[in-house]
Amino acid sequence: MNLINGVAGDAVSVRDRGLAYGDGVFRTFPLRGGKPVLWQRQYAKLASDCAALKIACPASDVLEHDLAAIAVAESDCVVKIIVTRGDSARGYALPPEPAPTRVIMSSPLPQYPSHYSEHGVGVHLCRIRLAPQPALAGVKHLNRLENVLARAEWSDPGIAEGLLCDADDNVIGGTMSNLFAIKNDSIMTPALTRCGVNGVMRGLVIELARDRKIPLRISSINIDELLVADELFLVNSVIGLWPIASLDRKSWTKGALTTRLQRWIDNAQGH
Amino acid sequence: MNLINGVAGDAVSVRDRGLAYGDGVFRTFPLRGGKPVLWQRQYAKLASDCAALKIACPASDVLEHDLAAIAVAESDCVVKIIVTRGDSARGYALPPEPAPTRVIMSSPLPQYPSHYSEHGVGVHLCRIRLAPQPALAGVKHLNRLENVLARAEWSDPGIAEGLLCDADDNVIGGTMSNLFAIKNDSIMTPALTRCGVNGVMRGLVIELARDRKIPLRISSINIDELLVADELFLVNSVIGLWPIASLDRKSWTKGALTTRLQRWIDNAQGH
Repeated sequence: MNLINGVAGDAVSVRDRGLAYGDGVFRTFPLRGGKPVLWQRQYAKLASDCAALKIACPASDVLEHDLAAIAVAESDCVVKIIVTRGDSARGYALPPEPAPTRVIMSSPLPQYPSHYSEHGVGVHLCRIRLAPQPALAGVKHLNRLENVLARAEWSDPGIAEGLLCDADDNVIGGTMSNLFAIKNDSIMTPALTRCGVNGVMRGLVIELARDRKIPLRISSINIDELLVADELFLVNSVIGLWPIASLDRKSWTKGALTTRLQRWIDNAQGH
Repeated sequence: MNLINGVAGDAVSVRDRGLAYGDGVFRTFPLRGGKPVLWQRQYAKLASDCAALKIACPASDVLEHDLAAIAVAESDCVVKIIVTRGDSARGYALPPEPAPTRVIMSSPLPQYPSHYSEHGVGVHLCRIRLAPQPALAGVKHLNRLENVLARAEWSDPGIAEGLLCDADDNVIGGTMSNLFAIKNDSIMTPALTRCGVNGVMRGLVIELARDRKIPLRISSINIDELLVADELFLVNSVIGLWPIASLDRKSWTKGALTTRLQRWIDNAQGH
């Protein structure tokens, strides 16, 4: 089911700047039992990303109304919200009176093998490097060709995700997930000041660690440093937490802290 | 008038990857007297850009059929062609059997003041820096947020274009145009191996210069080197050639070689 500006449909204007320039942002998260999971955080991130592009974010109650309509049709699904700057005449200049477009789409909840969470996933180290763009870093905008090219690097069904570095060999994150590493019971995650997407689940993990006084470092992490970590894991709002079982001919076993974080994430999501 | 996969309409599928990820390419050029200007070059660039993203480019006769339908309604207009990877399920992975979407849209020919071509334009030096991404450099893809942010830096109607540099102070081009400089009767234009769009009119100017044995350099050009050039100009398929009259508190007068290039471009376009 899709709602475009609150109306059921399956098409958007051909003059929408989302199509023309990727001039918009998006969110993807589950609806469980008719409720959007971690909705306050999802909305806060949507509003923050809209602000980064100076797009007027739809009010939360407008989106909640849309989500409720989706939930009537499908109480358990993945929801994607896209907000674009709306239509405009040809040209990059911002429209004088922008009317943002909001799209809500539902998809079936993916059925990942249970061993992904229990034992971990195989990860491909991507050849493409993320370009540094501080003006867009962290924002989940619609310019995602780097992710598309990265995901096209492998077709092996034994590989569940690809890991992306910048041109200086700093790891940034997965094609669709954020990355964490554990070394000597400390957690670290890449700084996202030059590229990457600062996801909602990344924010939750950082908060969970801080609340529990677990040492946490947010900084540049070189790929060589990553490969000697004790535990590695990936998070996003749909997959939750996947330990990394293998990457670049190295392998890991799921550790105690990763297991605890999975439980804390489940609790935070109201499971 | 818009044609979506050959059918008149004003909407595209909400699941199109052009909207979701900017997963596609585009062209913008004039139709004059019912004919697409420099069509062989436009099609060659469209095909090359599709190949860069491994999207199957529509056949030239299919697009020519679309353009002929547009020409019946509007014989003189600006045409924009978008080719996307088409619809897919959620996720970055390429669809197993992609069916590209082609969109043809017409807009009125812009009425630029005649002094833009005759005497030159005021240009803003943009603060945002283009991020280096060799995998996408030169390609006119749909990930154009950098251009949108750059164009949003000025609203002064006396400024006709913005000039973009990379993070190393190399000039790359305008937000919607390619850049050339003339120094001691030699022409130079930025290399586009790390960022920027390699436009059709840039290719034409390079060819015109080579045919006429005018010394030409394609390389990195630092902004300081640019500012001491004898003549500067911008080109694209819609504007043709605009001399730069002012940039960053410096000013230029249109020179003899720029004037000759304008005439050669007009001739090449069949004016």
